Amino acid sequence: MRAGHSKRVTPPGPLVIIGGHEHKRRDREILERFARLCGGRGAAVAVLGVASERPRAVEEAYRPALEDLGLRVAFLELADRPAAQDEAAARRVEEADGLFFTGGDQLRITSLLGGTRVDAAVRARWQAGAPLAGTSAGASALSSTMIVGGDGDATPARNTIEMAPGLGLLPNSVIDQHFAQRGRIGRLLSALAQNPAVLGIGVDEDTAFIVGADGVCEVAGSRTVTVLDGTQVSATNASELGGDEALAVTDMRLHVLPAGWRFDLHRRRPLPPERAGRS
Amino acid sequence: MRAGHSKRVTPPGPLVIIGGHEHKRRDREILERFARLCGGRGAAVAVLGVASERPRAVEEAYRPALEDLGLRVAFLELADRPAAQDEAAARRVEEADGLFFTGGDQLRITSLLGGTRVDAAVRARWQAGAPLAGTSAGASALSSTMIVGGDGDATPARNTIEMAPGLGLLPNSVIDQHFAQRGRIGRLLSALAQNPAVLGIGVDEDTAFIVGADGVCEVAGSRTVTVLDGTQVSATNASELGGDEALAVTDMRLHVLPAGWRFDLHRRRPLPPERAGRS
Repeated sequence: MRAGHSKRVTPPGPLVIIGGHEHKRRDREILERFARLCGGRGAAVAVLGVASERPRAVEEAYRPALEDLGLRVAFLELADRPAAQDEAAARRVEEADGLFFTGGDQLRITSLLGGTRVDAAVRARWQAGAPLAGTSAGASALSSTMIVGGDGDATPARNTIEMAPGLGLLPNSVIDQHFAQRGRIGRLLSALAQNPAVLGIGVDEDTAFIVGADGVCEVAGSRTVTVLDGTQVSATNASELGGDEALAVTDMRLHVLPAGWRFDLHRRRPLPPERAGRS
Repeated sequence: MRAGHSKRVTPPGPLVIIGGHEHKRRDREILERFARLCGGRGAAVAVLGVASERPRAVEEAYRPALEDLGLRVAFLELADRPAAQDEAAARRVEEADGLFFTGGDQLRITSLLGGTRVDAAVRARWQAGAPLAGTSAGASALSSTMIVGGDGDATPARNTIEMAPGLGLLPNSVIDQHFAQRGRIGRLLSALAQNPAVLGIGVDEDTAFIVGADGVCEVAGSRTVTVLDGTQVSATNASELGGDEALAVTDMRLHVLPAGWRFDLHRRRPLPPERAGRS
């Protein structure tokens, strides 16, 4: 209780992992949840458009949607690494109540932002409790190792995926997005067969997986989150595959979770929705 | 040992469940396997084109491919139920060493064939040990309950699938085809959530799941078979869903099996390829 010496430990903020194409006008439940997590009307949000080569279009999509929810929006284009080293940009992040990574290309996020001042500011704000959202490429980038390419609609094979180091804000995870809409279970299975210890999180469009500080996640939005748990995998040929040989993987555990369902990352167990009246 | 009174019990023939688009000229491993199961060069095959509204094109695809493998081909168009009641057609089936259902629409197979003389002849030949192959719609029709419609690339939901009674040659199963290529895991998950006791078998294109009389199946061809086993499913909302609400299903077990891998239907366990030298 020696208050003067105690180091105040704030849990990091929630991660709002969005599968892309979240609704921006009607039925915009996901953006509403994000706005509430930021503190509601009057809160300041830094929108990081680094993933996109067309930041103007991205700003035009997000500024009115977020302002309509009462948020004050700072849009950061971050077109190259010097821009991500800019002190004024880092300050906009430090002053924000919440952070939002837009879609585009996840390799732009990591390659343009990784190790810069803005990156450090993002991590510091999130560590201090600010909610951090990422949609589409912005969701993938939160993984420890992220999928950067690979066929959807293809049989699992080692050559169907390319991977790269992600921001790692959700450790021990591979996150994929536009999941059912782009038929991506094959590439997520390929990633997990290469290391079954990692948790696979496939987020559908207009759907979010909201990670709380206690490691309990909740699904929000109109579709589902698919969780792949490889801890019981009994066999795989992932280390023996040539270029386009087909993958074998047995005893993968799969959960499909719609809105209200939760997942405990520590125990790796799905949880049904909390009953009305308890929330 | 009273031979005069013993009823000779022949196990039914192998089922060759093909996911569609099996190669017909080069790398035609699946058709070669089927030809060998029929007895090889000189064997007679009845090709049932009932699934297709364009039987001429189907015959033009299969007759040269099968004849090139040394098979004698009887093509049965079976355009309506009277054709499927035709005694001469039933005799062609009775005289065949192997049977092959082509692709098209699985509802044409069951609605035009179900309960007819040709249907009875098919079952009798198969029960007497003749191999029976089905590709695409012809594969689905072998299920006990078959999927007849439903979005691929869609989030699992009850309204993503329509089902109908299949021929039931592989009991307690739902078979889907063009599986990875058309992103169909969502609709197979929806089917299984409605009854987790049923085994889900998703067969990729140019891939076959060959069911032996002992209940041990082997994968052949260039891609994979996905087996979904719902016996450990811990929760689902399948009975509570409205029209387009999203499905919940937890603890589904999933196996992805490429060529050479096997699956024991009785024990519901995947088996790795047999080592060279033992076969």
